[in-house]
Amino acid sequence: MSKRARPPIITLTTDFGLRDYFVGSIKGVILQALPKARLIDISHEIPRHDIISGAFVVNEVCRYFPSGTVHLAVVDPGVGTVRRKIVVSFQGQHFVAPDNGLLTYLVDKAESRVFEIRGNTLLKFEESPTFAGRDHFAPIAAALASGTDPAALGVEIEDAYKISGLAIEKKESKLGGKIVYFDHFGNAITNIKRADLPEKFEIVIAGETLTGLKQNYAEGDEAKVNLIINSSGYLEIFMPEKSVKERLNLELLDVVAVLNVIKSPND
Amino acid sequence: MSKRARPPIITLTTDFGLRDYFVGSIKGVILQALPKARLIDISHEIPRHDIISGAFVVNEVCRYFPSGTVHLAVVDPGVGTVRRKIVVSFQGQHFVAPDNGLLTYLVDKAESRVFEIRGNTLLKFEESPTFAGRDHFAPIAAALASGTDPAALGVEIEDAYKISGLAIEKKESKLGGKIVYFDHFGNAITNIKRADLPEKFEIVIAGETLTGLKQNYAEGDEAKVNLIINSSGYLEIFMPEKSVKERLNLELLDVVAVLNVIKSPND
Amino acid sequence: MSKRARPPIITLTTDFGLRDYFVGSIKGVILQALPKARLIDISHEIPRHDIISGAFVVNEVCRYFPSGTVHLAVVDPGVGTVRRKIVVSFQGQHFVAPDNGLLTYLVDKAESRVFEIRGNTLLKFEESPTFAGRDHFAPIAAALASGTDPAALGVEIEDAYKISGLAIEKKESKLGGKIVYFDHFGNAITNIKRADLPEKFEIVIAGETLTGLKQNYAEGDEAKVNLIINSSGYLEIFMPEKSVKERLNLELLDVVAVLNVIKSPND
Repeated sequence: MSKRARPPIITLTTDFGLRDYFVGSIKGVILQALPKARLIDISHEIPRHDIISGAFVVNEVCRYFPSGTVHLAVVDPGVGTVRRKIVVSFQGQHFVAPDNGLLTYLVDKAESRVFEIRGNTLLKFEESPTFAGRDHFAPIAAALASGTDPAALGVEIEDAYKISGLAIEKKESKLGGKIVYFDHFGNAITNIKRADLPEKFEIVIAGETLTGLKQNYAEGDEAKVNLIINSSGYLEIFMPEKSVKERLNLELLDVVAVLNVIKSPND
Repeated sequence: MSKRARPPIITLTTDFGLRDYFVGSIKGVILQALPKARLIDISHEIPRHDIISGAFVVNEVCRYFPSGTVHLAVVDPGVGTVRRKIVVSFQGQHFVAPDNGLLTYLVDKAESRVFEIRGNTLLKFEESPTFAGRDHFAPIAAALASGTDPAALGVEIEDAYKISGLAIEKKESKLGGKIVYFDHFGNAITNIKRADLPEKFEIVIAGETLTGLKQNYAEGDEAKVNLIINSSGYLEIFMPEKSVKERLNLELLDVVAVLNVIKSPND
Repeated sequence: MSKRARPPIITLTTDFGLRDYFVGSIKGVILQALPKARLIDISHEIPRHDIISGAFVVNEVCRYFPSGTVHLAVVDPGVGTVRRKIVVSFQGQHFVAPDNGLLTYLVDKAESRVFEIRGNTLLKFEESPTFAGRDHFAPIAAALASGTDPAALGVEIEDAYKISGLAIEKKESKLGGKIVYFDHFGNAITNIKRADLPEKFEIVIAGETLTGLKQNYAEGDEAKVNLIINSSGYLEIFMPEKSVKERLNLELLDVVAVLNVIKSPND
């Protein structure tokens, strides 16, 4: 398909909410710079200042978008302070965000490249120290979606900030996963993939021991906490029609232990 | 207007909420398959698993869209179980949804045709049993919006599942309507049209007897429950600045009785 | 850039919420009339019937959009009553709204022109007295975005309705500003610009006396009420991670007094 037929896509992920004029301002700035841009809202309801959840959302959604897509992500409690502005390039897509861990999953990819963007030669109106999403990230996203090489906008760096504690820890027959996201139903998504699970396993979370995988949500036992491999391939903990987050009082980065249950041949 | 000037429209109606990456994933899949698609969000805040409300929204909104529009609707408590996937074609528009009653109003139209979609030859990545919206309905919607005939995707069926209890019952001088939707103000929308009302009538709902139609919401009596013919032509029950749903403790499919008040000539 | 490359933009600001089919109906009507229209949601979560907040949002966001943009704004408690329908034209942009104060800031501009739109020759389906957004404002917005001159749709007027009480009052060494918007964090935005502030000042609001401007939100004292010049250039009152609106029990149009603190040379 010709370049003309495929308009440039810019996705937006923020914690700005949908009530105010903040997201609209960003969209206006992008459309001024790049009238053909296709603006796709991913979420503006990332919990306020929750970089861990924002990082998960951006990384999950990007795999469904075509090469060339630019992902603009702003969860930025340190706006106006000295944190850097970065672009990550990975598999033909670009990600624009503050350097505060929001792009941790992308920075961690072996093939990704990270650029620090300095200065702000792109903005055409007076900038404010408190709205980098509008004054910095939006013009950068428009420039990238127009085909500008990130290397032309900044310098490559190797030390982008990453959220710590997201990795799975392995110890003999035990695996220590983490809760990395709660969806709006209160389901708890872990960083444990199906391939991480031994043939027979027990999951221990918040004092509860769970076994067995449901094939779909309708199969879930309403009175119990259930396990499923979710649509992204991760182990997810859920209760039908209830919030498992509230029921077990869970928080992000809580440990989810996977125990390898091997029956001794003499049993 | 030439086909090129009228880009294909796909509307989205779900109960996925706006916080997570689910809707964004669906949009990415559609844009990969059909970069020109115009994606129009109708609602992602259909109450969870509320097929009755979802059905109403899709049916109300479609009449304002041009011929050729594809409506993707996903309220799917049985995702991953054996419920079928269907396409309904009506007046040049196509509707894609699980076969769980979400398209009841469209299936009920005399001129509509229903197709069951089997298999999944459209998807280009590994599917999950728990996200048919992304893995099945999105590619089907993109194919239909590209001009694919639904008959090329599935087989015509006559037995699509329909929500029961939506019809008006008539008994002599009494009409039994139903509440079929609550808007976000808590106004209660019935399935009673103006033409269903006799010249003089009383409405009985939740023990309250109501008479008279307001011409607009500002005319409503703040202390009372009021009646109006709403912007879709349905009888609606409202209180200004209050939720009549909460005030009268109403639920979907509650009966709304219409009594024909004929004064005897001897009175 | 050629006209073809810059598709017409129509922004939408309402209090209709995102749950129902109301916004979707408006979008359908616009796309029927103008298939190329780019629809940009600004907010549909303006508090119900809150014209003051709606007016602020429309005025803040428009400056980031290109010339030619049409802004459709509907916060319309008097829908179906005799209030007029107007178009305001300002710096190459058009604003469509009920004549209830929603466009106060734009009407107030010296260079703006206001047109009353009478009749409804644009609509192609039966209209309802309760949904002017769909039946009047949407077709008007589509016509304007298509290039129709507002003077061809209505007659110029000089007496558009304006919200009163939005102006700053000056009295010797004291300035009386107002709270004109609360964002979704509960931060209170005033109509006081940096240029309105004397070199040394005290702000009095709800019995609290505040001094000093923070440079960014992260600098805010968590235990106190803080001041900042926000990203739109207005004095804003905030608490980090808390709602100052709730904490001080603030309301729209509350007075924010600015005292000029001049040390007498004899002190």
